[in-house]
Amino acid sequence: MNYAFADRMMNLPESFLDRLFAVSSVPDIISFAGGLPNSRLIDVKGIKEAAIDVMTNEGEEALQYTTTDGYLPLRQYIADRYNKRLGLNATADEIRIVNGSQQCLDLVAKIFLNKGDHVGLEKPGYLGAIEAFSLYEPVFHGISLEDDGPVIEEFSSLVKDFSPKFFYGIPNFQNPSGRTYSTDKRRAIGEIVSGTDTVFYEDDAFGELAFDNKPIVPVKKFAGDNGIISGSFSKIIAPGMRIGWIYAPVKVIRTFDAAKQAADLHSNFLCQKIIHRYLETTDLDAHIKKITEVYQRHCRLMCELADEMLPDSVVRTDPKGGMFMLITLPEGMDSIKLFEEGLRQRVAVLPGVPFYTGKGGHDTIRLNFSAPDEENIKEGMERLAKAFLNM
Amino acid sequence: MNYAFADRMMNLPESFLDRLFAVSSVPDIISFAGGLPNSRLIDVKGIKEAAIDVMTNEGEEALQYTTTDGYLPLRQYIADRYNKRLGLNATADEIRIVNGSQQCLDLVAKIFLNKGDHVGLEKPGYLGAIEAFSLYEPVFHGISLEDDGPVIEEFSSLVKDFSPKFFYGIPNFQNPSGRTYSTDKRRAIGEIVSGTDTVFYEDDAFGELAFDNKPIVPVKKFAGDNGIISGSFSKIIAPGMRIGWIYAPVKVIRTFDAAKQAADLHSNFLCQKIIHRYLETTDLDAHIKKITEVYQRHCRLMCELADEMLPDSVVRTDPKGGMFMLITLPEGMDSIKLFEEGLRQRVAVLPGVPFYTGKGGHDTIRLNFSAPDEENIKEGMERLAKAFLNM
Repeated sequence: MNYAFADRMMNLPESFLDRLFAVSSVPDIISFAGGLPNSRLIDVKGIKEAAIDVMTNEGEEALQYTTTDGYLPLRQYIADRYNKRLGLNATADEIRIVNGSQQCLDLVAKIFLNKGDHVGLEKPGYLGAIEAFSLYEPVFHGISLEDDGPVIEEFSSLVKDFSPKFFYGIPNFQNPSGRTYSTDKRRAIGEIVSGTDTVFYEDDAFGELAFDNKPIVPVKKFAGDNGIISGSFSKIIAPGMRIGWIYAPVKVIRTFDAAKQAADLHSNFLCQKIIHRYLETTDLDAHIKKITEVYQRHCRLMCELADEMLPDSVVRTDPKGGMFMLITLPEGMDSIKLFEEGLRQRVAVLPGVPFYTGKGGHDTIRLNFSAPDEENIKEGMERLAKAFLNM
Repeated sequence: MNYAFADRMMNLPESFLDRLFAVSSVPDIISFAGGLPNSRLIDVKGIKEAAIDVMTNEGEEALQYTTTDGYLPLRQYIADRYNKRLGLNATADEIRIVNGSQQCLDLVAKIFLNKGDHVGLEKPGYLGAIEAFSLYEPVFHGISLEDDGPVIEEFSSLVKDFSPKFFYGIPNFQNPSGRTYSTDKRRAIGEIVSGTDTVFYEDDAFGELAFDNKPIVPVKKFAGDNGIISGSFSKIIAPGMRIGWIYAPVKVIRTFDAAKQAADLHSNFLCQKIIHRYLETTDLDAHIKKITEVYQRHCRLMCELADEMLPDSVVRTDPKGGMFMLITLPEGMDSIKLFEEGLRQRVAVLPGVPFYTGKGGHDTIRLNFSAPDEENIKEGMERLAKAFLNM
């Protein structure tokens, strides 16, 4: 039988995500290509205790259906943390629980995008977002990302000329580049979108992973009702439970709820309760500090080795948090070919290509420093240096 | 700010699901309106033991990211059970794990439907499916559902005249009616779709809940590659973990994977492992028998009381499994008004209205017999009888 799939399924960029997971699990290969938090920094013991507590004291409820919006005490916790950490005025009514913040990408696109609508995003931009948005067949506009954020003139023209439904960005420790917007650019962006019909969709998967543990004022602070934020417990507690959230004005939430309900009724209730119980009994800031100390050490080591061992013409970003850095290759070197040569040397890197909606990314690779340990970073960078030599 | 939502969000039928959950949780009201499995039949102890086992022995892995397809041993279990129970030839390659079978509704619609494509469904049909499909803006065709399945002539004309991308049905103990297709109609439907471009999408949320515990041959047995099935652990283990699956030909699975990955990367890995561990250590058939014995008792009681206490002109279905029965009201009585009078009597029923894509359902109500206990069924039916009297 020939299946007559929808047109939207023909627009999908070639997927790298599953290929990544496959490469990451080959035992002999050192992978800098993935996007996994470090498994050894997951507090299995603490989560297990929270799970036992939930199952013992409210198992029947946690294992039953619940409402679409998500567990109220967890939403309240998230709102409180926004207010305390970032000086926002969030309420639980503005927070909804989703299956990891990837689900926000799908649902925000679903509620906003008609075919042919305009969407802005960073160039390079997060490949999971490009995949999710592509299925709603928008017109993409990539805005160049500098070390301190998007080029403001380009951003401003985009909003004026195309009135995109939303601009999607990762202001903190961006994926794939590790770059962070300056406060000036955050303010400028907030001012540009205010009063327009363009939403600034701020994916804050990494904001808690600042090496100096200092909070950074989000774009939403300047964008007001034009701003929405998505967040996730994947990088600070554990990704396998798939618990993320959206923080948006109530008018958006109302429509979002309809899409979420149609998509899967509600997110895993057991894990919402486990995470909430875990948060009640854990010093989250101390736990995050433990994570960021390790990631900072990994990042410094990788930066030093890159400066020392890779060709002088290589340019790298200088992450102050998060999980990724971006390397710009010497003139004429192709990232796909380097990827293949890397595999021959048993090191996996991620070519920049899937981070572009148009052409681009042949001159960059993304390196992940959260998942590999220091031993593997050393060995992997040596292998990568060899791969560069063979190009 | 005025948010410019997508056109698809304007097509949503008014949602009853959240209103249901809200009504169901008012303490003083006896609810026959919900769709919850009985909380007391959830094996909290067994699931807790499985959870402790998983967290103790493979916590790091279970709490990390995984691949989109789902946990292979769980997919293998599902395939094996299809083959053993229903005489199918399923392989793990044809099974994918989703966030409860509601997610299948969204993703199947997403991969198949262009705006304006034709979709067939039962009349009345499952309201969660109508909500999910509506967002892809198809043209709906309702086919009348008789006690032994859809009217075959209508079904045949629909396939011939409109070539719908798929027909969605619940052949076993249908929601909302409790009806079950006869084997003859299953065969006829399979023969009609074979060789066409129409998929028969068989939602089998309730098949395991046959009161006599006898397996029923699925439509897919006759439809071959034109058949796909969705299933769920929600009704036989626990809904709060949101673990369901799709069983479809590999050609469909490949496209489905792309949509699932964009939607949320993967389903909750921790709970996939917990459910698999639970299945390894539990006699699932014995557990299901325990559930169906209770549901059968509830159903018989409700049927007897309906026959005894409701007006003679009431017609009810005669469920042989599942969780629901459908009542056709006396001529001229309106289901929405009965719903409101029911609430005054402190009993909640579900009007048939949301189960129709067009007009309809003002002459029917759905009653749930799985969630309330026998005491509440007795008291609730008395209240319902009073509500009928007051109409």
